[in-house]
Amino acid sequence: MEIERKFLLPELPVDVAEAPSTRLRQGYLAIGPHDEVRIRDAGGVFTLTAKSGAGIEREESETEITRAQFEALWASTEGRRIEKRRHLLAEGDVTYEVDVFEGSLQGLLLAEVEFHSLDEARSFEPPAWFGPEVTHDIGYSNAALAVRGLRGGTPA
Amino acid sequence: MEIERKFLLPELPVDVAEAPSTRLRQGYLAIGPHDEVRIRDAGGVFTLTAKSGAGIEREESETEITRAQFEALWASTEGRRIEKRRHLLAEGDVTYEVDVFEGSLQGLLLAEVEFHSLDEARSFEPPAWFGPEVTHDIGYSNAALAVRGLRGGTPA
Repeated sequence: MEIERKFLLPELPVDVAEAPSTRLRQGYLAIGPHDEVRIRDAGGVFTLTAKSGAGIEREESETEITRAQFEALWASTEGRRIEKRRHLLAEGDVTYEVDVFEGSLQGLLLAEVEFHSLDEARSFEPPAWFGPEVTHDIGYSNAALAVRGLRGGTPA
Repeated sequence: MEIERKFLLPELPVDVAEAPSTRLRQGYLAIGPHDEVRIRDAGGVFTLTAKSGAGIEREESETEITRAQFEALWASTEGRRIEKRRHLLAEGDVTYEVDVFEGSLQGLLLAEVEFHSLDEARSFEPPAWFGPEVTHDIGYSNAALAVRGLRGGTPA
């Protein structure tokens, strides 16, 4: 089970911009009302991930795939792709995954925080540089962003 | 592109029952309104297939996966699985794929015929032992059968 919260960022702090980062391209093979299947290229490491559920808790299964498998499936993700650079910043017990979107989503900054328990998730106090929480806004799911882009234009 | 027509069979002819067959188990990782992702074990050959579109023409991409990859993803298909034995019967230019369903779908017999062109599909004359055509009945898609089973009970 994956327990996470997600926040918009008004801007990218310098220490996050300088944190280690990986360029990600990902595409969706299928997006259902309760499930989705994604393939991802994270700097040459390829994975296929099946997720079900929504919001703070999601079931997930994942397997590494080869470049050849990735390429065979990538064509089926046309019109449902995202490119972004993901910065990892450790803060105490938690790691912030800060996504700087590229392409048609340029300008969008999202921070995701994963937790080990619902209690930990509930008691998390976001730092001052975090913007509004969008954990339960399905418009900010990566699947929705891949298909529809930003409904209200890019954030400030 | 996949061009196929699908028919119910009232019974299994002896020559089909004796044709070469493979036991298939397949499960769905995601089922969306316009797409689906399936993993299949065909007698120890494992594949992952992404399909989009519906009816007579469907886009499809497929890659072989390893047993380990299959096992890693299988858990995510719970409640969305099908088991069947597929018999292959060559008839002139076409091959009939006759699926004898097992488990909760026992009693269901479906024949699928794949074509190289829409013209060929349209001019196909089903043999006398074929029952009603269900190409456009999404209730008989494997994804729907995996999730909901037979809505009207088993056929005669």
